[in-house]
Amino acid sequence: MRVVQKFGGSSVANAESIKRVARRIVATKQLGNDVCVIVSAMGDTTDELLDLAQEVSPNPRPRELDMLLTAGERMSAALLAMAINDLGEDARSFTGSQAGVITTARHGDARIIDITPGRIVNALDEGDIVIVAGFQGVSQDTKDVTTLGRGASDTTAVALAAALKAGYCEIYSDVDGVFTADPRVVPEAQQIPEISYEEMMELAASGAKILHLRCVEYARRENVPVHVRSSFSDKPGTWLKDAKDIKKEGRGMENPIITGVAQDKALAKITLVDVPDRPGEASQVFELVAAAGVNVDIIVQNQSISDEAVAITFTLPQDQLAKTIAVLEGAQERIGFRKILADETVGKVSVVGVGMRTTPGVAATFFKALADAGVNVQMISTSEIRISVIVLASDIDKAVRALHTAFGLDGTNAAVVYAGTGR
Amino acid sequence: MRVVQKFGGSSVANAESIKRVARRIVATKQLGNDVCVIVSAMGDTTDELLDLAQEVSPNPRPRELDMLLTAGERMSAALLAMAINDLGEDARSFTGSQAGVITTARHGDARIIDITPGRIVNALDEGDIVIVAGFQGVSQDTKDVTTLGRGASDTTAVALAAALKAGYCEIYSDVDGVFTADPRVVPEAQQIPEISYEEMMELAASGAKILHLRCVEYARRENVPVHVRSSFSDKPGTWLKDAKDIKKEGRGMENPIITGVAQDKALAKITLVDVPDRPGEASQVFELVAAAGVNVDIIVQNQSISDEAVAITFTLPQDQLAKTIAVLEGAQERIGFRKILADETVGKVSVVGVGMRTTPGVAATFFKALADAGVNVQMISTSEIRISVIVLASDIDKAVRALHTAFGLDGTNAAVVYAGTGR
Repeated sequence: MRVVQKFGGSSVANAESIKRVARRIVATKQLGNDVCVIVSAMGDTTDELLDLAQEVSPNPRPRELDMLLTAGERMSAALLAMAINDLGEDARSFTGSQAGVITTARHGDARIIDITPGRIVNALDEGDIVIVAGFQGVSQDTKDVTTLGRGASDTTAVALAAALKAGYCEIYSDVDGVFTADPRVVPEAQQIPEISYEEMMELAASGAKILHLRCVEYARRENVPVHVRSSFSDKPGTWLKDAKDIKKEGRGMENPIITGVAQDKALAKITLVDVPDRPGEASQVFELVAAAGVNVDIIVQNQSISDEAVAITFTLPQDQLAKTIAVLEGAQERIGFRKILADETVGKVSVVGVGMRTTPGVAATFFKALADAGVNVQMISTSEIRISVIVLASDIDKAVRALHTAFGLDGTNAAVVYAGTGR
Repeated sequence: MRVVQKFGGSSVANAESIKRVARRIVATKQLGNDVCVIVSAMGDTTDELLDLAQEVSPNPRPRELDMLLTAGERMSAALLAMAINDLGEDARSFTGSQAGVITTARHGDARIIDITPGRIVNALDEGDIVIVAGFQGVSQDTKDVTTLGRGASDTTAVALAAALKAGYCEIYSDVDGVFTADPRVVPEAQQIPEISYEEMMELAASGAKILHLRCVEYARRENVPVHVRSSFSDKPGTWLKDAKDIKKEGRGMENPIITGVAQDKALAKITLVDVPDRPGEASQVFELVAAAGVNVDIIVQNQSISDEAVAITFTLPQDQLAKTIAVLEGAQERIGFRKILADETVGKVSVVGVGMRTTPGVAATFFKALADAGVNVQMISTSEIRISVIVLASDIDKAVRALHTAFGLDGTNAAVVYAGTGR
């Protein structure tokens, strides 16, 4: 079987880590698998290269930044191949371009258009272990080197697994898997053995940092089983699968309605007061904001006190707040709102679970738990398998713990120590 | 006019140096030239990457080592492009592969087969400054990344200058140019304004470290004028040209017979005692040694005391001595020599000059100078424009100074301080 394994920067941070990862890869190969490995840059290499760029240029062109940053994965890929060769297996490293990762030309945040894995298929067929530099590709039009955005080595791995028709894709980091909540907030959080793509997408979109959202989307679209696990232990991690492939008993005897609780602390909130209540007014606001590259999250429109105007409130990433306010102030006269209120820090708490589809009373349990904990709800957003609320930043941890307990997720054993969310 | 400029590692050692080099490149561009730049890795990057490889693997495969090391020039090329963009000119960086540097597949010591500079010609035609990562290419057969051997960024530069039909190629380092001798040995050494390719080749082969021998060979074959100069000053350096293009007055009024004196301290000497005096015996010895990858320099065969045997003596790089002795000892019975004598450190002193062709008495002056200085000559080798001798290592500096004076090369002014020979 073809197997794809991806190792994050913390798993290849130094020579010793690289040798340990090499032993794991060789063990997988010696079980009779064809192994294709995707590797991130060593430890803090990418940040160090960004610092170096900053020293040279206050505002480097994205094309050149991509040329610089891709050196990081090139180095770790070559070093990992060397370490594997020393263990008696043949390994060959490839850049993203050599591996056939074809992307758009949007430097720094390119999207994979196609994978043309001819060279790596040949190498696998010759019995070699293939090491591919993650996070990078080559643009279809300009043939320039591109990067896929921070954390996108996971996406490279799943895309290659799909292109190679691999049996599964393993994503190794310093975290044991996906938990019912962040164990730093909820010590009783338990590891989830299996989770559906849909649930993982909702968790990723709700602030869980364990996997890149695009990676999960890709896995779902291509139906690639993904195993999220730690490179520091041999324990099984969390499997991402199609919902119909998940064994009920995989969830434990209790079969909970809710799979996990996620939080996001890096949000801000903007309210436009007294927006004229005319059709198209809201779309005008969000077209403006979208054109500035801002990712709006939850939107609520309320009647204002005056009859002819409404209030529009939305959340967005904290680091985009200043830019967004500037854009809106520039358009105040045209849109005709009275003033802007901004809250620099709000939090989002979400519960996710496919069980919600078929279980009545989930919302009641949700809001009662928050009320009992004294948490005030500012905004609400729901999907078929998710409920999210915006709360005071200072209420986030309290809200997460209350929901985790209310939905019966607290384990009988203390959870494994959560080693962080680093890639 | 198209101009090629190459900057060594010491010229781009840190962010400040990169910005200084960027200003020089932009000035060249703003004179109306199309500029293609070849850049080495920053400072000690290549050595640091070699250390990292050593930590991971005692004996890394050359293919993977090339993948690792080429990251160095990729980084400096991207950073240099960023710095130029900040000065208001458009710059684009290219890897060796992107620049069309097609090589043999001999990793770590590949040879340039061809240059297919389509992408860089297009970029130059669009008005961009082109930055090419030196020292690297892509193998014609395997499409793998290759390196051209240490110091070979000079060769990349000259090869690109030839392919681009550039008006000239400037090689920048931390040295002011080519001197009549190493100024650390001879304080009276003078900078040479112009030198022929042939003389420079003889100097490079005789131990002068200022330019890579293959670079000079390439420049001669393609007739590329090369300007060797310092990136730390605006002073003119030394021009390499075809002998017929060198103005007599360029050499100064004295028009010396000898252009320069070179020394090589890193040589060892091996003598095979009592080799049977049969035809083909010597070729058998040197076939063996060549097969082991040893570069034999000077060879002398003498009659031994016994009538049926000869002594064969040759010099070789010090770091190849142990390997060569092992190879010869393994073949002692077959070749039939009696014993091996080895001298771990000998020196070679050479004088080079096209004037030797037409001037009688050069050899007499040469040997009288050494005799007067009390230097004993162990071996002699000559070409049409060079005399080299092997001497005791401890006699090298004395011999160089004596020859420099005897051939009238001592300047009236003290030479500029020689900043080293680093690339």
